[in-house]
Amino acid sequence: MYKLYNVKTWGSLAPHCVLEELGVPYQNIWMTPEQVRDPKFKEISPLGLVPVLGLPDGRPIVESAAIIAFLTDAHADKKLAPAPGEADHAEYLSFLVFMSVNLYQMFSVLYAPGMLADTDAEKATVTRRATENANAIFDLIEARLAKEGPYILGERFSAADIYLFMLSLWARPSETEHLARCPHIARVCAAVRARPKLKAALEAHGVMEPGGYGA
Amino acid sequence: MYKLYNVKTWGSLAPHCVLEELGVPYQNIWMTPEQVRDPKFKEISPLGLVPVLGLPDGRPIVESAAIIAFLTDAHADKKLAPAPGEADHAEYLSFLVFMSVNLYQMFSVLYAPGMLADTDAEKATVTRRATENANAIFDLIEARLAKEGPYILGERFSAADIYLFMLSLWARPSETEHLARCPHIARVCAAVRARPKLKAALEAHGVMEPGGYGA
Repeated sequence: MYKLYNVKTWGSLAPHCVLEELGVPYQNIWMTPEQVRDPKFKEISPLGLVPVLGLPDGRPIVESAAIIAFLTDAHADKKLAPAPGEADHAEYLSFLVFMSVNLYQMFSVLYAPGMLADTDAEKATVTRRATENANAIFDLIEARLAKEGPYILGERFSAADIYLFMLSLWARPSETEHLARCPHIARVCAAVRARPKLKAALEAHGVMEPGGYGA
Repeated sequence: MYKLYNVKTWGSLAPHCVLEELGVPYQNIWMTPEQVRDPKFKEISPLGLVPVLGLPDGRPIVESAAIIAFLTDAHADKKLAPAPGEADHAEYLSFLVFMSVNLYQMFSVLYAPGMLADTDAEKATVTRRATENANAIFDLIEARLAKEGPYILGERFSAADIYLFMLSLWARPSETEHLARCPHIARVCAAVRARPKLKAALEAHGVMEPGGYGA
């Protein structure tokens, strides 16, 4: 059975939703931020980050985009993403990694600007620039959805939309302002919130209503 | 047929090597840095970055880790990576994305610190800190290889090793110093350089000898 190391509203939210959508058995391990910061947690997550997915053989797997791609590949019969080897699978992987590298990582930087700055003034600049960069990526995705939506892969809903939903929760200055600025992304987020299989997980994270996180 | 948009020693080097190892037909499109910076290139690469892989149906796919994972999935019979759905595939995806988010992205930042800084002093701090972060990730990978190597996936050579080789070319202060500090990574890089199918590509990029880039 899979094991998900999970923190409310953190990066484990999307893998959590993917596990719920796939309907595969897993053990959900809620953690507090303090438990994540405990040096012992680095034994299973080298950078001390969630999410971690424990595989049935016990191996811990890190990186949200990789966990999601692995799960939808391993359970391709559930059709939550294009099957491996299809051309659409290339686009799916590309969007997952694109959002992970260019958007998720900007949130990592703006929540912990000390990773790239020394003084308070430098940290303020890094936070502001990371926010601008994240919003520029949201704008690119908004433009793509306007042209080729309604979902990231066009007509087809996929786990990449769940990933975009999670990243939107973290938007600055607030999810609410972000969704007002990006109506096509807002429609994706509403579609995720409307999925019956996700109701319990989204309620557990406290994000069923827009603005539940950081707003 | 695939199309690879390729710049010497840039992020397209690893996808280039993967295409050579897989032995699949593709069109190689060498570009100069100036051609990449031309605003027109953003029509096929939203952030104006290489690599881009053109799919046989014409769609452009971005993000090196996604391109590599797609190619090894689509040509799983060549066994350059674990097959989709296997537990080892989870670890393979995890390492590709981990290196992309935490290592490749730090090189993106240190080559263009202006993305997170305004003044020259701030840029110098961002560059220094990004370099330290990249080297800390190399240290984690070195420790992993020492314990569970010789390759990223243990006994099995995979495209993830080619990705690590490319990132090592960019190491600061130089590839040569990096390889001296990380002997297990050095062994992976030597194994990549020794692969007969990669000789022509590595010579074309000018990286057959250590220190060919940025040393």
